[in-house]
Amino acid sequence: MNNFEYKNPTKIIFGKNTIEKLASEIPSDAKVLLLYGGGSIKKNGIYDQVKTALGKVALIEFGGIPANPEYEVLLEALKVIKEQNITYLLAVGGGSVIDGTKFLSAAALYEGDTPWNILKNGIRPEKGMPFGTVLTLPATGSEMNSGSVITRKETKEKLAMGGPGLFPVFSILDPQVITSIPERQLANGITDAFTHVLEQYMTYPAGGLLQDRFAESILQTLIEVAPRVLKDPTDYEAAANFMWSCTMALNGLIQQGVPGDWAVHMMGHELTALFGIDHARTLAVIAPSHYKYNFEAKKEKLAQYAERVWNVTEGSIDDKAYAAIEKTEAFFKGLGIDTKLSDYTSEYEGTAEKIGQRFTERGWKGLGEHKNLTPDDAEKIVKMAY
Amino acid sequence: MNNFEYKNPTKIIFGKNTIEKLASEIPSDAKVLLLYGGGSIKKNGIYDQVKTALGKVALIEFGGIPANPEYEVLLEALKVIKEQNITYLLAVGGGSVIDGTKFLSAAALYEGDTPWNILKNGIRPEKGMPFGTVLTLPATGSEMNSGSVITRKETKEKLAMGGPGLFPVFSILDPQVITSIPERQLANGITDAFTHVLEQYMTYPAGGLLQDRFAESILQTLIEVAPRVLKDPTDYEAAANFMWSCTMALNGLIQQGVPGDWAVHMMGHELTALFGIDHARTLAVIAPSHYKYNFEAKKEKLAQYAERVWNVTEGSIDDKAYAAIEKTEAFFKGLGIDTKLSDYTSEYEGTAEKIGQRFTERGWKGLGEHKNLTPDDAEKIVKMAY
Repeated sequence: MNNFEYKNPTKIIFGKNTIEKLASEIPSDAKVLLLYGGGSIKKNGIYDQVKTALGKVALIEFGGIPANPEYEVLLEALKVIKEQNITYLLAVGGGSVIDGTKFLSAAALYEGDTPWNILKNGIRPEKGMPFGTVLTLPATGSEMNSGSVITRKETKEKLAMGGPGLFPVFSILDPQVITSIPERQLANGITDAFTHVLEQYMTYPAGGLLQDRFAESILQTLIEVAPRVLKDPTDYEAAANFMWSCTMALNGLIQQGVPGDWAVHMMGHELTALFGIDHARTLAVIAPSHYKYNFEAKKEKLAQYAERVWNVTEGSIDDKAYAAIEKTEAFFKGLGIDTKLSDYTSEYEGTAEKIGQRFTERGWKGLGEHKNLTPDDAEKIVKMAY
Repeated sequence: MNNFEYKNPTKIIFGKNTIEKLASEIPSDAKVLLLYGGGSIKKNGIYDQVKTALGKVALIEFGGIPANPEYEVLLEALKVIKEQNITYLLAVGGGSVIDGTKFLSAAALYEGDTPWNILKNGIRPEKGMPFGTVLTLPATGSEMNSGSVITRKETKEKLAMGGPGLFPVFSILDPQVITSIPERQLANGITDAFTHVLEQYMTYPAGGLLQDRFAESILQTLIEVAPRVLKDPTDYEAAANFMWSCTMALNGLIQQGVPGDWAVHMMGHELTALFGIDHARTLAVIAPSHYKYNFEAKKEKLAQYAERVWNVTEGSIDDKAYAAIEKTEAFFKGLGIDTKLSDYTSEYEGTAEKIGQRFTERGWKGLGEHKNLTPDDAEKIVKMAY
């Protein structure tokens, strides 16, 4: 087990009708900017619940943060924050709205030239403008971590940021919100959380025995509840376990003391940037090829995963490891998630080379848990995923 | 799954040689009271490591906090805190020293008549004097929670306290410390952590699918590493997983959204108060009888535990549930922990009645996850444990 430091100060308020508790979490003298996405919260009743709960809190609204939160849109929100002397941010949405809010939390207190530098230079803010979240879409775990991914259409870039000052002060998780989420988004959420766990688990045995078992616990729970969630989003037990699994998949806990891969995300982000494919779906496209390509390096953990999560008890280490990849791909397909790039676009030729070139241009030294995957390896993996 | 609120702001600094990082966690202008126990830290080198790491931090010491931290001793430390204008507490020890420090954290800022009221009246401090810990004995989880248990010899009482202001600011967990812990204490630590998990898990199915799996993960990890820890405390991988499992067993995470039992602790505390038996050993004495006595209420979870943790796949629910109790008792015995009260004292006659009477006198309404166990039930359970 590697040394680690772990602190996660976010207060989680979880359960039925918890949006009601909103006002008591925000300082009464705060001037709040309420941030949301495309407006679905106005149709599904969450907007009304939030407004009712906030009561007399001083409030300005900023809607229209898109999936893959867009830098130019966020700059408009930043302008509002500064002009209106906002002191507190409230994200009501999924990972995109929350990620965008984290960028704003950092940018609001940033004193440099242009806030793009926070992303470009990998600045890790120790302090941000305080913010809370009301989660409307379980998937990214952004509600209980300090990371964010921001997209810039102008340059077709998608960059990660984060820092200890960017944890939400509180996050309200009411599993009932999933009843109004389209099936496609639910499937994306399950796939996203599942892959988050794999990125932190599918590496090599590193003596994190408890971390491994926690990771397997989340995978097993997602496998158990996924069909229930898709069949009947009003199944509260399934919804609650789905939602809590998504949060635990990426709140930092299972990553402590063990290596992380994250190459699937690095390649997946490029597919979203290039083709606009849903984030979760890009992960399902890349993961199987990535595990096949890096089979020798990962086969011990793949076999452990096969045994403990998929109950594959027969065969050699290699047999079990292969079975694990097949089971994973079948799981994604069972959710209605296609796992080949050609399922999403007919213009896939040249993508691998383009991604390899981008990685080279950015000067990245290496991907994966051993930091030894080159842009050339990435090119081959993406090609396998055509 | 029940609604819950969860926030755990303690910063964990985990791994080899992490005591070195101590000074950077304490404000440079702090006046620190260093609290420790019977002085073993002076023999095993931890005291020297701490002093070296603290460098020029202004420091006063208070040693001699006994196992089952004693109220009268803590009052002496409180006097030092007030006389010396202490602003920061540093606990270097196991659960007893840390629990005692939590009491002092609360008492230092308490403005009522006598600090005993904090315990007697169940006051839950929102704020305490800030404190950090250097954990020397994995067991209680006190290093990452806000709870404490204090003993008062004068009245043979052992009472719990806690509150959101009583989380350690930081806790340093260096698994190498276990190399100097006597085997008896290591066995106690494993038993203590194992029972902490059982108290939060061995109730009834409540739809906390992920919480169940996390609890099972900790139990499986403890079972896996226990023989390694006892055989060779220098086995770092085993030590690290043991230490992290103890912390995760009682940092609040697995308790969220699910019922808790805690009757084993309530009865066990009385055995410590009456006979001075090690805390962990009282749990091993009570748990098997408690589960047999409450067999019908708990058998579904007992059977799940048998299947998932002990790989008992044959037989009816009842068969598996019985097997689970037997496996648990055998596990404790395998650690060298006796599981009957008569193994510890020849003067056990009348104990059950005495404990039942104490519970009645304190006006407790009910124990266990259904709050329906009466003092009379407790009497029967303790008698079964003779």
